[in-house]
Amino acid sequence: MANRQPHSATTPRVAAFDDWIRNRFIDLNSELEDLYEAQENRSQVAGVGDDLKQVLVDEGRELIVDLLEEGNTDEGFDRAFELLGNVGYYMAACRRHDITEPSRERTSPLAEASALAMHLGASLGTVPRFVSSHMETYNRSINGRYRTFTWRPAEKIFLDYNTRSALAYMRAADALGRIHPMGLSHPAANDLLVDARNALDDVLRLNTELADRLDVDEFFFCVRPYYKPYRVGSQEYRGANAGDFAAFNQVDMLLGLCLPTEAQYTQIVIEKIPYLTPDEQRRLHDSFRHPNLLDSLLEQREHAGEAWFRENAQAYLEVCAAHGAAAAHHHDELVARFITAPSTGIPPEFLEGITASGPPLDVLLRALEGLRDRRLAAPRDDIPTRHDDLVELRSLIAAP
Amino acid sequence: MANRQPHSATTPRVAAFDDWIRNRFIDLNSELEDLYEAQENRSQVAGVGDDLKQVLVDEGRELIVDLLEEGNTDEGFDRAFELLGNVGYYMAACRRHDITEPSRERTSPLAEASALAMHLGASLGTVPRFVSSHMETYNRSINGRYRTFTWRPAEKIFLDYNTRSALAYMRAADALGRIHPMGLSHPAANDLLVDARNALDDVLRLNTELADRLDVDEFFFCVRPYYKPYRVGSQEYRGANAGDFAAFNQVDMLLGLCLPTEAQYTQIVIEKIPYLTPDEQRRLHDSFRHPNLLDSLLEQREHAGEAWFRENAQAYLEVCAAHGAAAAHHHDELVARFITAPSTGIPPEFLEGITASGPPLDVLLRALEGLRDRRLAAPRDDIPTRHDDLVELRSLIAAP
Amino acid sequence: MANRQPHSATTPRVAAFDDWIRNRFIDLNSELEDLYEAQENRSQVAGVGDDLKQVLVDEGRELIVDLLEEGNTDEGFDRAFELLGNVGYYMAACRRHDITEPSRERTSPLAEASALAMHLGASLGTVPRFVSSHMETYNRSINGRYRTFTWRPAEKIFLDYNTRSALAYMRAADALGRIHPMGLSHPAANDLLVDARNALDDVLRLNTELADRLDVDEFFFCVRPYYKPYRVGSQEYRGANAGDFAAFNQVDMLLGLCLPTEAQYTQIVIEKIPYLTPDEQRRLHDSFRHPNLLDSLLEQREHAGEAWFRENAQAYLEVCAAHGAAAAHHHDELVARFITAPSTGIPPEFLEGITASGPPLDVLLRALEGLRDRRLAAPRDDIPTRHDDLVELRSLIAAP
Amino acid sequence: MANRQPHSATTPRVAAFDDWIRNRFIDLNSELEDLYEAQENRSQVAGVGDDLKQVLVDEGRELIVDLLEEGNTDEGFDRAFELLGNVGYYMAACRRHDITEPSRERTSPLAEASALAMHLGASLGTVPRFVSSHMETYNRSINGRYRTFTWRPAEKIFLDYNTRSALAYMRAADALGRIHPMGLSHPAANDLLVDARNALDDVLRLNTELADRLDVDEFFFCVRPYYKPYRVGSQEYRGANAGDFAAFNQVDMLLGLCLPTEAQYTQIVIEKIPYLTPDEQRRLHDSFRHPNLLDSLLEQREHAGEAWFRENAQAYLEVCAAHGAAAAHHHDELVARFITAPSTGIPPEFLEGITASGPPLDVLLRALEGLRDRRLAAPRDDIPTRHDDLVELRSLIAAP
Ligand code: HEM
Ligand code: HEM
Repeated sequence: MANRQPHSATTPRVAAFDDWIRNRFIDLNSELEDLYEAQENRSQVAGVGDDLKQVLVDEGRELIVDLLEEGNTDEGFDRAFELLGNVGYYMAACRRHDITEPSRERTSPLAEASALAMHLGASLGTVPRFVSSHMETYNRSINGRYRTFTWRPAEKIFLDYNTRSALAYMRAADALGRIHPMGLSHPAANDLLVDARNALDDVLRLNTELADRLDVDEFFFCVRPYYKPYRVGSQEYRGANAGDFAAFNQVDMLLGLCLPTEAQYTQIVIEKIPYLTPDEQRRLHDSFRHPNLLDSLLEQREHAGEAWFRENAQAYLEVCAAHGAAAAHHHDELVARFITAPSTGIPPEFLEGITASGPPLDVLLRALEGLRDRRLAAPRDDIPTRHDDLVELRSLIAAP
Repeated sequence: MANRQPHSATTPRVAAFDDWIRNRFIDLNSELEDLYEAQENRSQVAGVGDDLKQVLVDEGRELIVDLLEEGNTDEGFDRAFELLGNVGYYMAACRRHDITEPSRERTSPLAEASALAMHLGASLGTVPRFVSSHMETYNRSINGRYRTFTWRPAEKIFLDYNTRSALAYMRAADALGRIHPMGLSHPAANDLLVDARNALDDVLRLNTELADRLDVDEFFFCVRPYYKPYRVGSQEYRGANAGDFAAFNQVDMLLGLCLPTEAQYTQIVIEKIPYLTPDEQRRLHDSFRHPNLLDSLLEQREHAGEAWFRENAQAYLEVCAAHGAAAAHHHDELVARFITAPSTGIPPEFLEGITASGPPLDVLLRALEGLRDRRLAAPRDDIPTRHDDLVELRSLIAAP
Repeated sequence: MANRQPHSATTPRVAAFDDWIRNRFIDLNSELEDLYEAQENRSQVAGVGDDLKQVLVDEGRELIVDLLEEGNTDEGFDRAFELLGNVGYYMAACRRHDITEPSRERTSPLAEASALAMHLGASLGTVPRFVSSHMETYNRSINGRYRTFTWRPAEKIFLDYNTRSALAYMRAADALGRIHPMGLSHPAANDLLVDARNALDDVLRLNTELADRLDVDEFFFCVRPYYKPYRVGSQEYRGANAGDFAAFNQVDMLLGLCLPTEAQYTQIVIEKIPYLTPDEQRRLHDSFRHPNLLDSLLEQREHAGEAWFRENAQAYLEVCAAHGAAAAHHHDELVARFITAPSTGIPPEFLEGITASGPPLDVLLRALEGLRDRRLAAPRDDIPTRHDDLVELRSLIAAP
Repeated sequence: MANRQPHSATTPRVAAFDDWIRNRFIDLNSELEDLYEAQENRSQVAGVGDDLKQVLVDEGRELIVDLLEEGNTDEGFDRAFELLGNVGYYMAACRRHDITEPSRERTSPLAEASALAMHLGASLGTVPRFVSSHMETYNRSINGRYRTFTWRPAEKIFLDYNTRSALAYMRAADALGRIHPMGLSHPAANDLLVDARNALDDVLRLNTELADRLDVDEFFFCVRPYYKPYRVGSQEYRGANAGDFAAFNQVDMLLGLCLPTEAQYTQIVIEKIPYLTPDEQRRLHDSFRHPNLLDSLLEQREHAGEAWFRENAQAYLEVCAAHGAAAAHHHDELVARFITAPSTGIPPEFLEGITASGPPLDVLLRALEGLRDRRLAAPRDDIPTRHDDLVELRSLIAAP
């Protein structure tokens, strides 16, 4: 009866590389992590475990040479995107183990991996490196195990929660995105606002659990280093950010807390777009064209006395509150505890590249603070927030 | 501060027609409904209110002639799709009032409306008539009022619940559709299954409320007649079905309860595709290519002892149960009470075209029963259902 | 050095069926054609060669059952579309040999082929039957041989020229479609008009050669019968038309000789859309939204004295002349000699289904005449043509 | 009769800005060019014509502020893309007149223009600056005049020929791209190869005329400076290249002269992708997945004796020759005469940014030489070319 669907599309070479990434590769990285950990200064990577590193480089290259010869045989998005992820895992591990280092080189020494990654990225329309979707929503699990770099529990905890949180954001974005063609005064809009709020409440709950369960040092010394920038060919690509999915920004813009015509915000979003899957790229492009809910409510302020207005403005405000709370928690708990705090403890010469996107930590933190305050609609003089508009909205529906 | 976004894209002619559809048009239809209701045989429409009908035809045509002259000026999907809906409302009302009648004509006498509708449908890639999305998820509401044919409360009750129920199905489909790239054994899959089940529980709750609140006669005599088949140019298009959205079938196929390689089922889905928005068409095409969850679980039966298997198979079975329950309620309550029952009470010569899609009622009912039983995975000899596969799955996770 | 790219995507079952279609299947059809030809009445098919027919049905079914079991494994458009073509070839041959006959059945007796075809069509977004692109621009040739039904030279002659002519139309459509974003007064527009004219001249030349080389009887009795309507599941789909590609109508509308807001014309185009590849469907949708060249010239009549106007209006008129000439030749030579003439010689009971799209021959011919006259901008009272507008344009650029 | 289609989509503010760009803006730039020319050192721009520059900045900003307030109202690709072009023209002129200078600033002082450009770019999926398509294939002409920066004849000559040459490349790419689904041994493939060769011959002819007619100094001092890199917000975007269209690289890869799995080549293509229109981006992505003609011929070398092989291999070689000849002319004539030569004459401190893409001239020239030699299939030890494969192909079809 069953509709079998064997994965006939996967060639033996693709399967062999995938198998290597899912087993041997993780063993090698894990052994190297043990060596680093055994040292006084865990950040000291150069010169440690050189034989293991050589094995890693060579075994990976051999499999990649075979794939390059085979070419990209037009077998659908999923396969090509998974393969790009696998090549990217390999390149990122080489970067983590200091086998490659972008500031030291003008071109990646991983020539074959670069060629394959660029070939795949160009045919897919994404950057030619591994991105967050490879680790999360496109990280195909086999009997309960998805791809990781190491066997360390912290990595799995981090990814489990990140993925679940990203999916909750997607649910919120889907719900909010469906309001626009119906309008906020449509009787079904309330369901969508409530669904979005629930989803954003889930985000906060999940991120809070993550903060509880994730070991700071393990994360800082054994997980994050795999997410650093690296070169593909001669071009350096910034590291993978947990925030590299569209839904977060869709929520920002659909709620109207961040504006697609505000330069500083848009700059941040634009930078991110090539790091998304083509489908998410499209969703994000679209959300730059859609009206936002806050403007829409304020334009209808003459109907503030109507039941629909009071009810949906209230529901809208609750979505904003949930979005703001999750953003604040992210900034004030996750970033503070897992990045800022441990960064203070280590020698400055090892701090380089601490952030995935490149700028110095304090510049990054200030930018993140600005984002948080937009999402909180906090009163700020220096950057545009919707503080006053939310005040007006609240007063419009305050009991007379 | 606000990002204004006036709807500059809407031309004055488009706005004038929209205004007419949202006000005067509803008045005229409502007056005609009052006349029909005042008769002994409510089904008697011909020859009643002829002056009102003439006004309806003439006023609509005048506005449409202006629009035809203006042409379709490439202003984005939303505007063109809304306009197609408005032309369709007009044509459907003419059909309901027996001003046009497809079996009587070889070409629609509404020549200008036909030309405009075909022009829009061809440029959008949908059928050139109004479809369910026009009444539901794309029915833009202005200060709490979306487009309707009449002022009758039954129409609003029907649409409110239909829209909300359709949105709940979409949420279920989105959640299930995100499992496939991660695999069922991914730690995040459980959240998605739970979300899908909750959404399908919402469907049943909403449909139950609908059944409670909707007046049978009002629905049968004043609402459904607007959803009949009509001609656009020389081609007859079947009526609007509440089921004309992709999510329902996406859930069917993603769960694996209905199979994209089973002819009878696929035939039904194929017929529906042109009645969907382009975006929903694409989603549905895609779901024909994706593996289904039931096959995926059964192929991993050797891992039935694992925690992930027991947990997610259980969650999967609950999604199936919720989908089956909503489908059974739809068939056994909604169809039975609102279509089958009242149909028995009226003279046969008025029964023609009782169903939106054309086939005689008993044929339609048998087909719907088959769909219900697939969704219930009921034991059937005559059509393929997943009954035995679900039995196996249950036994796999039964406590030892 | 070479980038190998073996077709790893093709499964052994897909390859086996393709091989059968390219060899054994052609043998069987050819043998059957010999039997039919040997009779007094070549149109007599029923009851002739029943053993061969059984072999054809059985061998094909066996291969298709294997494929159905394998399912559609998401391996990219090309493979799925080719496979749909192969299934369609099989079903069309069964129709030609009277093994199936849509007016005799309510459901195709080719159950497995129907299921596979619907599955593929639904996932691709095209009708679930073989279409002209399968015979022409997507008919992959292996060492000089593409797929045919028979070994008869007439079939190859017909397809060679049809394909080449279709490609020439595509070149014309591409050129004309690139004018709109630049405007007709752009210095580069002339190159595009000239290229379009050259391409349309090629069409006429190729169609003229076709008329010279194609044997009327062979075409009428051994080629066309494979292009008849047939059922897939319970739905009947009209036959394959040589005109089922978008470029022809793109040229019509871009030139402005046929208008996307004229009901009769648009009806014809809409009917055709599902018989195109998704890419061509999109192109055709787009051309419904674009302004046409003739309106654009007339709106700029105040510049008729400018060099660009005179030059490009002249070039535009030459494109129209070439398009009209090819259309007239198609109607007055190809249709007249290869369809109308031989139809008169055969008994009426065998004339059923003479036209691919179903309507009686005289109705079809009248419609085709209308199309020809639009393309010729001939003076007609009964249908809208651009005769008067072309007269005006000519007078605008006539020497003073 | 005519299908009117007024450009209702264009808002008055969009029209006002377009009008300014098409008239006043050109006047101001032209006056500034006159001032620069009047100096001994034409490269001296700073401090010259400061009052005119201020007027340029202020008038432009005022119009842009209005547009920013209006937002992007989802009116289809063409309008948004044209508007992005207009904003980009303004920003590029400010760069040319040294009003902004990326190495001097961390953020563009043109804050409003930056915001609007980013908003538009993000919603379109292109870089937020003006690109070659704005100057060429999407440069809408009104009564014979398209957008330019100045009234200088050299600018028009350069753009006229560039546009025509780009269109000829597109025609070649379209033809070659249609071979792959049919295969090189299809009887229609020859027409496509011949069409491609003719189109590439046109390129050479047009580029030769360009070289004859274009004044070196005018081009170097008054045209190219408008194509320099500039910042949008804080990000610097490289300048507009005449080569920023997909067709050129499509031809490279479809012919197999450049390989999508060769890192150096792919790097160059990837860099270019965001500077293309979304439609061209998609075409280019696709061409990374398709087999190339040279590999395809060589894989069928056992059929070298067949007529189709000899004929199409010959035709293929002629396409390669035409592509190589045009590439060689571009490098050896256009680049040499219009860039390299005049660069030698001017003081080094004014040479900065001489190339649109940033690297020093000699590095760029070496890279361009490599591209030329790939296209010529020249014998090279240091970079991969198809020299040996073409030798083999020629020998395969040499008379015995
Ligand atoms: C023996 C040669 C041919 C014959 C007998 C023939 C016959 C016909 C017939 C009878 C139709 C009407 C189809 C229907 O609605 O049933 C038709 C339509 C069409 N044919 Fe042909 N055809 C021939 C060759 C070609 C060729 C070589 C082309 C160019 C590629 C072509 C292009 C078209 C087009 C574009 C239509 C669509 C109808 C329209 O829009 O006018 N045909 N042909
Ligand atoms: C005065 C005339 C021209 C000059 C001086 C010129 C100069 C250049 C230069 C310097 C580059 C390298 C760009 C960079 O990376 O900075 C380039 C690239 C390019 N140009 Fe031109 N160009 C001219 C005309 C044309 C024309 C008419 C075409 C054809 C449409 C063309 C097509 C290209 C292409 C396709 C590239 C991309 C580089 C490659 O892939 O080889 N150019 N041109």
